[in-house]
Amino acid sequence: MLNKVVIFGVGLIGGSFARALKKAGAAREIVGVGRAAAAMARALELGIIDAVGVSGSAAVPASAAANAANAASTAPAVAPGLAAGGPASAAAPLSLADALAGADLVLLAAPVAQTEAILAAIAPHLQAGTIVTDAGSTKSDVVAAARRALGAKVAQFVPGHPIAGRETNGPDAAIDHLYIGKKTVLTALAENSEADIERVAAAWRACGAIIHRLTPEEHDKVFAAVSHLPHLLAYALVDDIARKPHADLLFQYAASGFRDFTRIAGSSPEMWRDISLANQPALLTELDAYMAQLALLRAQLATGDGAALERVYSNAQHARHQWISAIEAAEAPPSPDKAE
Amino acid sequence: MLNKVVIFGVGLIGGSFARALKKAGAAREIVGVGRAAAAMARALELGIIDAVGVSGSAAVPASAAANAANAASTAPAVAPGLAAGGPASAAAPLSLADALAGADLVLLAAPVAQTEAILAAIAPHLQAGTIVTDAGSTKSDVVAAARRALGAKVAQFVPGHPIAGRETNGPDAAIDHLYIGKKTVLTALAENSEADIERVAAAWRACGAIIHRLTPEEHDKVFAAVSHLPHLLAYALVDDIARKPHADLLFQYAASGFRDFTRIAGSSPEMWRDISLANQPALLTELDAYMAQLALLRAQLATGDGAALERVYSNAQHARHQWISAIEAAEAPPSPDKAE
Repeated sequence: MLNKVVIFGVGLIGGSFARALKKAGAAREIVGVGRAAAAMARALELGIIDAVGVSGSAAVPASAAANAANAASTAPAVAPGLAAGGPASAAAPLSLADALAGADLVLLAAPVAQTEAILAAIAPHLQAGTIVTDAGSTKSDVVAAARRALGAKVAQFVPGHPIAGRETNGPDAAIDHLYIGKKTVLTALAENSEADIERVAAAWRACGAIIHRLTPEEHDKVFAAVSHLPHLLAYALVDDIARKPHADLLFQYAASGFRDFTRIAGSSPEMWRDISLANQPALLTELDAYMAQLALLRAQLATGDGAALERVYSNAQHARHQWISAIEAAEAPPSPDKAE
Repeated sequence: MLNKVVIFGVGLIGGSFARALKKAGAAREIVGVGRAAAAMARALELGIIDAVGVSGSAAVPASAAANAANAASTAPAVAPGLAAGGPASAAAPLSLADALAGADLVLLAAPVAQTEAILAAIAPHLQAGTIVTDAGSTKSDVVAAARRALGAKVAQFVPGHPIAGRETNGPDAAIDHLYIGKKTVLTALAENSEADIERVAAAWRACGAIIHRLTPEEHDKVFAAVSHLPHLLAYALVDDIARKPHADLLFQYAASGFRDFTRIAGSSPEMWRDISLANQPALLTELDAYMAQLALLRAQLATGDGAALERVYSNAQHARHQWISAIEAAEAPPSPDKAE
């Protein structure tokens, strides 16, 4: 049982973590911290969190903090924790120091571009017994940011990446079963103690996740190949088509294959810009390998080498079939007729 | 009402055309012709077709024709149409001449690589009142093949492409509603009469399809962009990953975005080899445009130009959203909460 959990960002990822911990009875108190006052108030209203904290003047404009206070209560602002006749959170948001006081676990689930600013803001208030983890889609850059922001306290930071998501966001999207059966990759640092890593792992396991461990570099190479590159490729294709003079005609004939292929191009441009830049070296490596592969296919196509094309297509079909079979075998128990 | 329809290939596409015509009461007799004796026998058994024809010694090995006869009946082979006490098809397959005699409409739904051989085989038997159409995914090459194989009779050939498909095949995959609400593109020739084009259009409309008209060249450019290129790109990515030394590790972390992006790489390698080669010029043009787009994105990524990356990602997201909204509006009536 975690006594106190602090979550920065209570949208789909952070909010679902909170809901899952509560459902499992694995956390006594959950404090949500965020810049969007309305979202924090909504998370409180939905019972996702028990109290709201503000992320400090560095990360939150004064007006936003004031709005947060207004959203939570029409009473005049009072010192945090001093409101009488109700929970502190209903009266005014907690300061960062109060939010973090006595916390067992802190999860960063805000946009990754904010990671370093949040870590820098919490560093002065980080007590010895508190472990910090995150949910960012890239890890090498997060580790570098953590080293800069936390200094020696980086030993308390266990980087993580839950492999789960949906196309929705905000507190209303948070669900208690988002992580069930999904992987959470922990990319522990040399400075982390095994006990601290295990505490983070246990929290994710309480949410239903399966723990995997990779180094930050392994993580970034893997996800550059199977996630970041496909996103870039899908965005590139839709943009390419949309810029053609006869784009309307083209889209008119696009069918279900195109829809599935480009589904990930419906993702947040800001988030994927940040991920692309954050994982630039690994993504460039994968992109270069892919462009070389396309150059090869282009040559086969230009010379009409059907046998070579078929070898590539066949190998891909076979590999994908094997992969899908493995997934289905792993996910088999709940439903015998998995749709693929 | 079509008196007699002849369908080459009674798998998903040809078989569903047959079933839809029958359901609509739009065809009196349907003759299936094909090389795979077991498939033809199965189509007959399922009631998809009323009789089986053989596609001639040029296209069918003698042993396959014999197998077809054996599959259809254990009685000794007799002259087509002369079997007493039952439908001719139950006794022996029809010759190509008999199959085509008095046909109103012929649909070619066999693999596109067989198109020219089939057209050459039917040319001598093609009566003046018969119209031929096809279901091939590429059109310029089909038109060229038709001109070579049919000579002056090419005026009787109205090329077509139903935009419908599933991951299943064979007669058992055939369903009567495959084409409802789907587009069928007709790429008429200058030699076609409007009356003949309209007869083909009417048959597809009877199946529930919506008729669109493009030139063969327009068709091939459009589908190179929205179908053929995405297939090549998906095959390329899966093959690229599968060939890496750490492919197993990579596939282990591939998630739903990867699954959707690569779904079309599960398609038949032979079919897509043929389509790639058949539409080579247009596909090369689209591939070159895409490779130029990737080179641009690579440069933006390498220089850390987040604003430029975001413009591309944003434009793509916006265009895809518009497209999906248009699709949903077009498909709205049956279900108010379309899943996207």
